[in-house]
Amino acid sequence: MEIPVVADVLKLNDEIAQLNRQRLHDAGVFSLDLMGAPGAGKTALIEATIKAIDARVGVVVGDLATQRDADRIARCTDQVVQINTGKGCHLDANQVRQAIGRLNIDQLDILFIENVGNLICPVGFDLGQDVKVGLFSIAEGDDKAAKHPYIVQASDVLLLNKLDLAPHVSFNLESFQADVSRLSAAVPLITLSVTAGQGVDQWIDWLERRLDR
Amino acid sequence: MEIPVVADVLKLNDEIAQLNRQRLHDAGVFSLDLMGAPGAGKTALIEATIKAIDARVGVVVGDLATQRDADRIARCTDQVVQINTGKGCHLDANQVRQAIGRLNIDQLDILFIENVGNLICPVGFDLGQDVKVGLFSIAEGDDKAAKHPYIVQASDVLLLNKLDLAPHVSFNLESFQADVSRLSAAVPLITLSVTAGQGVDQWIDWLERRLDR
Repeated sequence: MEIPVVADVLKLNDEIAQLNRQRLHDAGVFSLDLMGAPGAGKTALIEATIKAIDARVGVVVGDLATQRDADRIARCTDQVVQINTGKGCHLDANQVRQAIGRLNIDQLDILFIENVGNLICPVGFDLGQDVKVGLFSIAEGDDKAAKHPYIVQASDVLLLNKLDLAPHVSFNLESFQADVSRLSAAVPLITLSVTAGQGVDQWIDWLERRLDR
Repeated sequence: MEIPVVADVLKLNDEIAQLNRQRLHDAGVFSLDLMGAPGAGKTALIEATIKAIDARVGVVVGDLATQRDADRIARCTDQVVQINTGKGCHLDANQVRQAIGRLNIDQLDILFIENVGNLICPVGFDLGQDVKVGLFSIAEGDDKAAKHPYIVQASDVLLLNKLDLAPHVSFNLESFQADVSRLSAAVPLITLSVTAGQGVDQWIDWLERRLDR
């Protein structure tokens, strides 16, 4: 009985994800599922993007507990919803569906869905997003692409953050890039430091090209 | 049908964990389940501990893919087993049981079980360890205890690593400590920098007191 039960849960998730996708497309919203380890800089990236881009941005943010990320993002946009997953290790399509219902999506161009800090579980769940974004940080070490191949392969774009820490940590960028290329030859990899403002323009360029306006 | 299936899986895990615990106790081995986000410094902590402590240390190390951590640890001890979980987001008791079977545990005083890099899923699974150790890093930000309350509450000791990066990142130590105290009043919190060797002696002291020799 076990396998059919699990399959049904995933099938139900995918069906709701498809409804989310249709609803966002009908409203003209481009959506991103932002995945990364705890502390990779997901919230900071969203804050910097809202400030840098000429577009109306809404945010759904997932965490086990607290509304700290939503409080941060609320200083940049009033279109923000915090989801607390309790012990849940990833967002699912139904949580996102409920969150979208609390946003005025007709007033948005972009929706960021900031997933729970976790390199593993968010990868397998479709939320209805247009693209999945995988965010790594130099502070995590240069072996993280090789150790987490599925997020590399599932992502439409990869970001490597905290370049400003490069002088202070051991990180072989060529080794990291080689692992990424081996796992997903075509995926773009943008290196940046959100806090130092370095490379953010390349990320904004990538995003604006996807907006197709 | 769903809930009983899940309950049975957890019950089976707990039964195997109890067998692991008995087997390790019979062999006089003190065991630790080391949990932390990707790149918090779990492997580096184990390497430093092996070098600093006067005890025979074995290691079971979990990752989705690669045997890079085992290769690193093999330079410090030949009693090491790598578990590749595939898409699995945490170790379970049966994986640890199989790994223990490949170690000569009668020749060990300490067994480190390095869990998959993840602050969430490893918390709920008993592996048969004596203590759970939660490892955070300053690079992850000072909000991570509040955002991940269950690992704080499940841990017998908490470590905050990468103190050497304190001058280069924004981290309010008092705020982090206050969150830890609120969530788990009695848990010891040891701040350290494994790479700089700072605070490692306090960690070794804590561990040696637990060995009860």
